[in-house]
Amino acid sequence: MTIVKIGGGAAINLPAIVADLESIEGPFLIVHGANALRDEIATVHNRPKKVITSLSGYTSVYSDSTAIDLIMMAYAGLRNKRLVELLQQNGINAVGLSGLDGRMVSGRRNRGIRTMQDGKKVLLRDFSGKPHTINLELLHLLLDREYTPVLCIPIIDEDGYAINSENDDIVALLQNELQAHVVFHLIEAPGLLDDVEDPGSLVSQLTSSDLATREQEVEGRMRRKILALRKLFHNGSPIVYIADGRSETPIRDALAGRGTRIQS
Amino acid sequence: MTIVKIGGGAAINLPAIVADLESIEGPFLIVHGANALRDEIATVHNRPKKVITSLSGYTSVYSDSTAIDLIMMAYAGLRNKRLVELLQQNGINAVGLSGLDGRMVSGRRNRGIRTMQDGKKVLLRDFSGKPHTINLELLHLLLDREYTPVLCIPIIDEDGYAINSENDDIVALLQNELQAHVVFHLIEAPGLLDDVEDPGSLVSQLTSSDLATREQEVEGRMRRKILALRKLFHNGSPIVYIADGRSETPIRDALAGRGTRIQS
Repeated sequence: MTIVKIGGGAAINLPAIVADLESIEGPFLIVHGANALRDEIATVHNRPKKVITSLSGYTSVYSDSTAIDLIMMAYAGLRNKRLVELLQQNGINAVGLSGLDGRMVSGRRNRGIRTMQDGKKVLLRDFSGKPHTINLELLHLLLDREYTPVLCIPIIDEDGYAINSENDDIVALLQNELQAHVVFHLIEAPGLLDDVEDPGSLVSQLTSSDLATREQEVEGRMRRKILALRKLFHNGSPIVYIADGRSETPIRDALAGRGTRIQS
Repeated sequence: MTIVKIGGGAAINLPAIVADLESIEGPFLIVHGANALRDEIATVHNRPKKVITSLSGYTSVYSDSTAIDLIMMAYAGLRNKRLVELLQQNGINAVGLSGLDGRMVSGRRNRGIRTMQDGKKVLLRDFSGKPHTINLELLHLLLDREYTPVLCIPIIDEDGYAINSENDDIVALLQNELQAHVVFHLIEAPGLLDDVEDPGSLVSQLTSSDLATREQEVEGRMRRKILALRKLFHNGSPIVYIADGRSETPIRDALAGRGTRIQS
């Protein structure tokens, strides 16, 4: 089993990724982002993304009801369906699902984020949360009949509300439940970089214990991303490739070592 | 088996419809529109809907690639996922799918519409077409496990492209394939009206052969709608209710005779 996470950056080369999926052996599923598209649609609708920083230093998107509307339009709507269309054109019988559909990905809504506003500590609660259950019955129902699930946010909370969630957490949960042997992260960079500003600082090989060290060296969103990567190794020992989703052959490049390879 | 078609008008009372679905006995599936939402999003994106009239008098939406983007955002994205969310909150394990997903609804792309432009006859080809195949395997896979399919456009054409299609045609095809006994059309009117301008002119009872007579009396989009209704009776003899999707109990009202009831 392979999980392919496709980033939501504007430069992600969807047609190239889809054409290169034939390099994967065995069944796979896709989890995709759409953040560039979401931002673009948000701008047109004059609804800029709200970002808040928690007291502990993590930044996150503040997802009100309008933000969920935008996620539905950008992720579950335009990006998911154009990706499913591309997959179908390449002979892959894809089924696009948000976490709401069949309760594919359910989670717990965040209780609130403690943050500073005008010099005061406040608790902000939005429509966001952490995934904790995968509908494995539905997932296997599809996989067993050679449908390729194409998953995206929003996910569903304990009261049936659509909530935003981090794709990295969804991928970690899926990996844990499915014991996937290989996880691809196709992003807008050559791989994991020692210096985000320097594409030449690619880290080619890494162990899961190296991740723990690195987690201490970075902050904010990057810290959470590394934490999510570490979670992939909590239950199972996959090979994780972080590779360039902008290239002409993103998966072959990753397999050939032109990205970051992480192994326990 | 019951098919519930929910119109895409702005006044459609989705929460009331969803709460009233318990009035339906046995399994059902939903086909929904989102035209008001699509128009609204199109306006924000400064992409007004293009409508063309064929030489034979039918009007239709001209669906270029941008129009399909808007359909994906409005139908498969925002409307489908908010509806699935409502269903989940009401204990119905809904799975929202466009026709692309698992090739649920595939069709043939229109060869082009003959129309007049600047006084000349031209052939315009867009991303639209007629549905001709339902993926019954996937549909039954879901229904057998008590998932409720929630279907919408776009559908998929013979080359794997996303195309626009009339929901009435999709419902007629589904009815034919599933031999549904009951079909609800929940619209923004009390039912079928003798005079569209007069809500008091409700036609309470109708036979399928009455439809043929009526088809001759109307034009354009309404004519195609009646043709689609007639198709429901080509293979099977369902009871068709056309009822007010704006009321507090749309399905109970329909069953109680407060709409139009059509029977062969």
